[in-house]
Amino acid sequence: MGEEMLNQLKFENGLISAIAQDWKSGEVLMMAYMNKEALLQTIKTKKAHYWSRSKGKLWKKGEISGHEQIVHNILVDCDMDSILLNVEQLGGGACHTGYSSCFYRTIEGKLIQERMFDPREVYHLTQ
Amino acid sequence: MGEEMLNQLKFENGLISAIAQDWKSGEVLMMAYMNKEALLQTIKTKKAHYWSRSKGKLWKKGEISGHEQIVHNILVDCDMDSILLNVEQLGGGACHTGYSSCFYRTIEGKLIQERMFDPREVYHLTQ
Repeated sequence: MGEEMLNQLKFENGLISAIAQDWKSGEVLMMAYMNKEALLQTIKTKKAHYWSRSKGKLWKKGEISGHEQIVHNILVDCDMDSILLNVEQLGGGACHTGYSSCFYRTIEGKLIQERMFDPREVYHLTQ
Repeated sequence: MGEEMLNQLKFENGLISAIAQDWKSGEVLMMAYMNKEALLQTIKTKKAHYWSRSKGKLWKKGEISGHEQIVHNILVDCDMDSILLNVEQLGGGACHTGYSSCFYRTIEGKLIQERMFDPREVYHLTQ
């Protein structure tokens, strides 16, 4: 582990932005935040962990859905305030809505993907 | 322009995170922030504009280097708080350090790219 680089990372209010990209297709899957613990857990387990700002807690990606992200590489940007994860997305999709990527729409509102799974089944929702 | 979707975007403290990705190779080039004006300018001109948090001003990517980003598509994520730009990067590289992507190092400190240009020439630096 690059201890020196790890200590140079700029966490803003304790968080750093993290982009997950499919390690083979190059598809950008999602953008989330990590605190230092999430990053350390990610490095240690090679499974992506994030900080959920809405829930205020550490979040292992796929902890409910099983759609974990196996982390193959972690890149750091020039000014040390953003991280890029090259991941192998399990379960067919990264997005909780069932799409492979959270970026499934254009800004004009056009859908550009098809659903990979039914979120009602994956998250055991009743409706 | 998707006026409705534009009005649903969640700007946090006036900013939204924006990822630029090469529209052909899929390479993630950089991560920056946009305010609403930067986004509107990007949509209008089809050239990427960001909000420079360090300089506190609107910033047209490439305004000094000439390394503009021609925007081919703008995607919005599921919870409307992040944007993905599919861009054509002019000048060979997105990063001010001369690399094609700002993510040119692993977290272990290993360089994974070669420089595309000499930043001293592009930015007319004296050292």
